[in-house]
Amino acid sequence: MTASSEHSSICVTRNYLILGEFQFIEGIRRAFEGVGDGGITGIGDDCAVLPIGGGEAFVVTTDMLVEGVHFLRHATTARELGAKSLAVNLSDVAAMGARPVASLLSIALPAEWRGEWVEEFMEGYREMSALHGVKLAGGDTTASKGAIAINVVAIGRAPLHRLKYRSGARTGDIVAVNGVLGESAAGLRDILEGRPDTPNAHIHRNPVPQVAQGEWLGARPEVHSMIDLSDGLASDLKHILKASGASAEIDLDAIPTPVSVELAVTGGEDYKLLFTVAPEEFTRLAENYRAKFGSPLHAVGRITESRAEARKEEPRPDPSVEPDTNEIVWLDGGEPVAKSWRGFVHF
Amino acid sequence: MTASSEHSSICVTRNYLILGEFQFIEGIRRAFEGVGDGGITGIGDDCAVLPIGGGEAFVVTTDMLVEGVHFLRHATTARELGAKSLAVNLSDVAAMGARPVASLLSIALPAEWRGEWVEEFMEGYREMSALHGVKLAGGDTTASKGAIAINVVAIGRAPLHRLKYRSGARTGDIVAVNGVLGESAAGLRDILEGRPDTPNAHIHRNPVPQVAQGEWLGARPEVHSMIDLSDGLASDLKHILKASGASAEIDLDAIPTPVSVELAVTGGEDYKLLFTVAPEEFTRLAENYRAKFGSPLHAVGRITESRAEARKEEPRPDPSVEPDTNEIVWLDGGEPVAKSWRGFVHF
Repeated sequence: MTASSEHSSICVTRNYLILGEFQFIEGIRRAFEGVGDGGITGIGDDCAVLPIGGGEAFVVTTDMLVEGVHFLRHATTARELGAKSLAVNLSDVAAMGARPVASLLSIALPAEWRGEWVEEFMEGYREMSALHGVKLAGGDTTASKGAIAINVVAIGRAPLHRLKYRSGARTGDIVAVNGVLGESAAGLRDILEGRPDTPNAHIHRNPVPQVAQGEWLGARPEVHSMIDLSDGLASDLKHILKASGASAEIDLDAIPTPVSVELAVTGGEDYKLLFTVAPEEFTRLAENYRAKFGSPLHAVGRITESRAEARKEEPRPDPSVEPDTNEIVWLDGGEPVAKSWRGFVHF
Repeated sequence: MTASSEHSSICVTRNYLILGEFQFIEGIRRAFEGVGDGGITGIGDDCAVLPIGGGEAFVVTTDMLVEGVHFLRHATTARELGAKSLAVNLSDVAAMGARPVASLLSIALPAEWRGEWVEEFMEGYREMSALHGVKLAGGDTTASKGAIAINVVAIGRAPLHRLKYRSGARTGDIVAVNGVLGESAAGLRDILEGRPDTPNAHIHRNPVPQVAQGEWLGARPEVHSMIDLSDGLASDLKHILKASGASAEIDLDAIPTPVSVELAVTGGEDYKLLFTVAPEEFTRLAENYRAKFGSPLHAVGRITESRAEARKEEPRPDPSVEPDTNEIVWLDGGEPVAKSWRGFVHF
């Protein structure tokens, strides 16, 4: 499956998901091995990749938003929800280094929310579409007996060689992010505590997908892997490490955040980009990025070798449990500190 | 938007939809004019069309199924629902004359339906995928507080010149279907009346998308327009007539049905193909079709000129009401009969 982010507009619970979403998805991936082909890849990345010939590809991602799980009807405006439901999908396309070109929208809506609500929702969706030149190519509208459900598909396009996968990180790469973290999580806390009008609450409800930035980073061969920060750095970096068979060290004092390091690392829905870069190229990349976008890139750590080799020598207390060989080592003032941060936990 | 079919596994109500789905979709189409480009077309057809260069295109369609609206949890098996949720989307791809290559699946599932239910659902989905060589390329899984919601996207591929649109019908074309009609509607009636085990009830729960047939018809230049029969001939033919600016005569005694003509014409979810053919080519097409698929094509009528010309001479009782210039004239023994059949009415 593509991105597993919950991208809750107003997140009510973080304890959901079937079996454990990642195990479920892995089970599905195995069950569908050998079904179809066409060079399609991408289950487990931000987008599926569909090669289209001539060295080009479409990328496709989908996310479903359910009322009461991902948002509360009365805690977000319809316009904000319309924009956000597209934004979180554009973020997945950007994380592949692709340019979004089209979307499809399905809405299931109870009778009492038709009329003005859906018009405002569509206005927000249209504004986000227009901002990024994304065509609404199709969809489905239907009734619902209870909750609102929204499903968005975003389709992007890029040369195959520019696509950035979670699996591309190399030992020695700089781990970088392209913006400050934690504001959205702080905003969610504000909303849940009854302060829906703080600047952070506004940020939480109005995520800005890094569309131009993702396409620009996609065009840079020194960028080796990329993902969007939907579940928090602790969780999203882990996806890169597992896919790349690597570990990482993260310098806590290098993490850019106006709130707290813990919120920055474990909070979800920043929708900034997390990526790894050849170390000798990082300074120049950051200079060019600043010249282009007027804001800095932040180096927050580095990719290290997988712990698999080191672990071979260690006794395994329970041989039936696969050891975690893709670790994040948190450094505070250069010294490892024990943290149980796991980011946005789905199950 | 793409197909407006409700494709109810077990349809509970047929009175839904926002504003009137068609008006709503038309409003959206207008609001999004000028947003994005890339040669993407298809809002209002069975699929959106994304040209990919080299004279090829992807087609994309999406449908959302909501528990209590499109199906009742206890009146269908999870396996049937899994297969059907993909089948109805493959039907839309087939109706474009394209070959389905990939799908994306989103499920929102309440906690009590995890485990066995979702495994059986995925097994049905996998079987339908394998039958047609369609890759599961991605998706999203999430919790739901109440109803199950399922969204499927199907992606197909075809040379651009083979794609069949609703707008291609020409005056004089034969109107044809590639199978018997009405069984699914009869099956739905059986289910709603407490007889879930009849052959027709089984047909209703297990639609067979005309995948190979659609691709074969797509390759025939004498086939001018095509749609899948999801809402009933009276409704789906109307889509072709409106898009083509045409009218039609339908011979009621030519409609192939083992149930009743009324169910055949107004019942939904047959998922057969409805298409129009150059009249001089129909006999040969039907012979070749029979040689290939072992079953007949059925000529049920012909495309006539739009009534717009004739209506110009008529007085308009209310000038603010746009006259219906794309009529279906029902013929019984060659004579016009008055019928108020409108097919599957959404609103």
